[in-house]
Amino acid sequence: MSEGKKEKSNNPKQPKNVKQKSSRTKTETNAKKYSPISRNSSAKKKTSSKKSNSRGAKKETTKFPIRISFLGGLNEVGKNITLYEFEDDMFLVDCGLAFPEQDMLGVDLVIPDFTYVERNADKIKGIVITHGHEDHIGALAYLLKKVSIPVYGTKLTMGLVEGKLQEHGLLGQVKLNVVKAGDHIKLGKFDVEFIHVNHSIPDAVALAIKCAAGTIVQTGDFKIDSTPIDGEMIDLARFAQLGKEGVMCLLSDSTNAERPGFTESESKVGETFDVLFRKAGNRRLIVATFASNIHRVQQIIDTAQALGRKVALSGRSLENVVEIGAKLGYLNVPKGILVNIDMVNRYPADKMVIITTGSQGEPMSALTRMAFSDHRKVEINPNDFIIISATPIPGNEKMVGKVVNELLKLGAEVVYERMYDVHVSGHACREELKIMLGIVKPKYFIPVHGEQKHLVKHAQIAESVGIPHKNIVIADNGRVVEVSQKEIKMTGTVPAGRVFVDGYGVGDVGSIVLRDRKHLAQDGLLVVVATIDAASGYVMAGPDIVSRGFVYVRESEELMDDARILVQEIFDECALNKVKDWSTIKNKIKDEVSRLMYDRTKRSPMILPVIMEI
Amino acid sequence: MSEGKKEKSNNPKQPKNVKQKSSRTKTETNAKKYSPISRNSSAKKKTSSKKSNSRGAKKETTKFPIRISFLGGLNEVGKNITLYEFEDDMFLVDCGLAFPEQDMLGVDLVIPDFTYVERNADKIKGIVITHGHEDHIGALAYLLKKVSIPVYGTKLTMGLVEGKLQEHGLLGQVKLNVVKAGDHIKLGKFDVEFIHVNHSIPDAVALAIKCAAGTIVQTGDFKIDSTPIDGEMIDLARFAQLGKEGVMCLLSDSTNAERPGFTESESKVGETFDVLFRKAGNRRLIVATFASNIHRVQQIIDTAQALGRKVALSGRSLENVVEIGAKLGYLNVPKGILVNIDMVNRYPADKMVIITTGSQGEPMSALTRMAFSDHRKVEINPNDFIIISATPIPGNEKMVGKVVNELLKLGAEVVYERMYDVHVSGHACREELKIMLGIVKPKYFIPVHGEQKHLVKHAQIAESVGIPHKNIVIADNGRVVEVSQKEIKMTGTVPAGRVFVDGYGVGDVGSIVLRDRKHLAQDGLLVVVATIDAASGYVMAGPDIVSRGFVYVRESEELMDDARILVQEIFDECALNKVKDWSTIKNKIKDEVSRLMYDRTKRSPMILPVIMEI
Repeated sequence: MSEGKKEKSNNPKQPKNVKQKSSRTKTETNAKKYSPISRNSSAKKKTSSKKSNSRGAKKETTKFPIRISFLGGLNEVGKNITLYEFEDDMFLVDCGLAFPEQDMLGVDLVIPDFTYVERNADKIKGIVITHGHEDHIGALAYLLKKVSIPVYGTKLTMGLVEGKLQEHGLLGQVKLNVVKAGDHIKLGKFDVEFIHVNHSIPDAVALAIKCAAGTIVQTGDFKIDSTPIDGEMIDLARFAQLGKEGVMCLLSDSTNAERPGFTESESKVGETFDVLFRKAGNRRLIVATFASNIHRVQQIIDTAQALGRKVALSGRSLENVVEIGAKLGYLNVPKGILVNIDMVNRYPADKMVIITTGSQGEPMSALTRMAFSDHRKVEINPNDFIIISATPIPGNEKMVGKVVNELLKLGAEVVYERMYDVHVSGHACREELKIMLGIVKPKYFIPVHGEQKHLVKHAQIAESVGIPHKNIVIADNGRVVEVSQKEIKMTGTVPAGRVFVDGYGVGDVGSIVLRDRKHLAQDGLLVVVATIDAASGYVMAGPDIVSRGFVYVRESEELMDDARILVQEIFDECALNKVKDWSTIKNKIKDEVSRLMYDRTKRSPMILPVIMEI
Repeated sequence: MSEGKKEKSNNPKQPKNVKQKSSRTKTETNAKKYSPISRNSSAKKKTSSKKSNSRGAKKETTKFPIRISFLGGLNEVGKNITLYEFEDDMFLVDCGLAFPEQDMLGVDLVIPDFTYVERNADKIKGIVITHGHEDHIGALAYLLKKVSIPVYGTKLTMGLVEGKLQEHGLLGQVKLNVVKAGDHIKLGKFDVEFIHVNHSIPDAVALAIKCAAGTIVQTGDFKIDSTPIDGEMIDLARFAQLGKEGVMCLLSDSTNAERPGFTESESKVGETFDVLFRKAGNRRLIVATFASNIHRVQQIIDTAQALGRKVALSGRSLENVVEIGAKLGYLNVPKGILVNIDMVNRYPADKMVIITTGSQGEPMSALTRMAFSDHRKVEINPNDFIIISATPIPGNEKMVGKVVNELLKLGAEVVYERMYDVHVSGHACREELKIMLGIVKPKYFIPVHGEQKHLVKHAQIAESVGIPHKNIVIADNGRVVEVSQKEIKMTGTVPAGRVFVDGYGVGDVGSIVLRDRKHLAQDGLLVVVATIDAASGYVMAGPDIVSRGFVYVRESEELMDDARILVQEIFDECALNKVKDWSTIKNKIKDEVSRLMYDRTKRSPMILPVIMEI
């Protein structure tokens, strides 16, 4: 890296970035929150393709590559964050969180390691957000506590970001710049254009990133929906136009690279709702979905409206998204249709639809609480018709299954998984990925967003549509890819680990704490305490043995007595032999008590000796 | 229950069971291990349907019902065990284990609660095993340590049971009686007939259970495979014949009740192996599958043989099953084809197939060790072609995904999940379940083996083929179902919980230990230790604070100091106020330290105060 930096600072051909700089300054000072900046109207764009062709850094040439540092999102699901660097300018795309894996005990969230960002804070011109999902915005507040940079995104995305910043007490301290599809912004020597895509949240965009080195297209999360709920199909024309102009490198969403065919249109779910809502007859309807899926919520509201049912919301995140969505014009809520969840029992069953969170069986979610008869307002009964409008994210299958089982035990009818078309994915399947590759026609390709199996499959798809094997790079978090018209290659590494958030603590739970938690979770612990006479080394009080999570003590008194005798003997022996090094004594206690416990129980509880001296 | 017992003992019409008894005695005394008992040859059976019709208790009538106590296997996957009771006789079907759920921290296995079995030990005439899978035999050794009863099962099943008993040092102490499909045995007043079914392990049987109250058919795990590997299709004719004679109640396998259509034949997988083994070309082949799936192993060996490859085995359970399967004639291993895993690197890649365990991504399995470069003999490289011939059991998706990702990172080609037909289920899908219901034509129906969603779906299938709703019972573990020609009803309850096996301990890990493990796993612990002067109550040594799994202590010294000061203040205050009740002091420490920690970290570690007195 230091080499790279040197190279840049010594570069005599470095283009003057006055133009861009002034442009950026203008952006920052003129842009009001939620007001569009540097806008190209769609009509203007369409009639000015030549102009567009000649805009930005396109005309200039350079021998310098673009450096792409992957700080997250590769070989994992979530935690998406990418750093672009050209000469002395950098900017970020997205800043998401990941949910903890099963072995990250007690961890609430996983966020990226911002070391490299902090180290380069002065070079970073801003952060661009593709859409408002947690895996793309969830770590933004943590980033903005470390570096102060302007944020760019579409209206809904910025609305959701605003909520995040408010939670973290950052509102007003950060510049939120609203853009819309078709807009360009300048970030140092970069020109970044926003392109409308379809996804499971409105207002999602792809990015066309241009500088003297060439054009990079990053799709963000996308699918191709020819009958989307908000009426606008992904802007394939713009992708195709960019393809004609020449795209150096494509970074594309690999989430569904394993799935053949096409992802169904969101409209399909509306048709299913229509069938199922009628099938429910006089029963109460409860529909669980992702809070952020505003189009899904819209379709539930529309179907409820058509059948004369009221709608109640259960789940804080859902209430929050519906409020923002309605306020910003992404959700059409007919007057009087929404009723407070507290009022839900005042309406007859056949006049009510409850939309709820918990489609993934999350333990504290509204639907889970309903299933376990733990919801304050909604009591499930045989007159309930429940639709889980989602498929389980890998790893959540068991949790969702449990919730379904409990709901069924309460007598409700439950529609889940693939019984009906109650869910469609927000990500492109194989044929859509081929279309994207086919129209963007990139020289180089980097599959992003996904585990190794997704990236590998996506790379194979790219090869199948004619991208040469050597022009495809499967990168990894912490790897830097340099791409120029001449070549693509993986070069150095940058710090890019996982930072655990646990309560207020960010990064204070590391591998040692986790290792201890795993040990404690597996076999519990034994605390061995004794007070020692400092002079003689003999035990004055104790040894006492306290255990937790190991055995049911009342039924293991003999074992505990034997342990106590063993520890007493160790102390006596050490006193006799004048061993006064506590760590030696402690290790001896650990080893011997551990051996005793394993021999007798085949378990290895953590042994924690505490010695006090008088 | 006591009522039920009385009723029986006072029953003057109780049929004399001399015939059965002598038959049973004969069974027990004449039967040698692995020697067939009381056998009806298939030919004899076919020509004697009238005789068969009049056999056993069929002619007699009774007003007493059969009581079926579900001690496991309902509303769960695994831990199958069913107790049948008629008048004074009882017998068990299967005795399986379940694997611990995610929240059963540190637990190795889950077995049934045998309280009710022990309480009725004198009435229990034996245990009948349907097939050799862990969820049907895995808890048998634990049962046989508590009650001494004869075991009945087919040759392979008994071979696998023998291995289990050996592990538990029970060999020779238990009577293992080998039967084969078509055989009948007498268990008190019950006549139990074994019927051949297809499943993912050879030698699986269903049971026709007859007594004066009527006939019950319990399918065990089954599928309908018209081209099975061992050449014998499920004995549909016998099921149909029983149906004609009149079946009072059917208990049938619900595992795949959610899946439409038919389960593919095991032969299909062989065809896929043929294609994929050729596709592998000169590369080394590694195939992961369930150890117990002897037919699958057979097909791998056959395909290897056809292509001139040697076969090596990796994984103890696989080696064990292959040895037993070959010895008992269920697996045809051509001479010289098996090579020791230690020799695997002496053969060229294109001459080798490695069969391995770990198809579910189990952390300690052979395939997982290969994936994480931790296998002593097999090093994965880009010249490996790996087939995971299994689909993830719900809950294992993430683990399997991780193994796939790691194998891909090492450059291997990996075939997994639904990319090719590399796996078929061993359980009947919806159309097969309908066939079973349609030919057995039971008056009453109890869906078994599955979670609530499976049972409910299976009940719906039964209704769809004409079984009246009121004749279907969805039971639960611990529930007793009484069935007679007149009615089916759920009556009392019996003890039927989950017993956790952890190391040598059976049942010593209960809800308190698990609750503590969960707490420790989530936030770790703080041990607060002090030595107190017994007379004055003042602190003589300490207070010391030791934490594990909570925070990285070196970065939290201030927090620990504050806690120490807080505890010192509590002791001082208590001494001043002459509070000498230790539990009061301990509770005060717990509450106040807990509050301090939550305020500062938003975490709630376990607080463990230890006070020593001098």
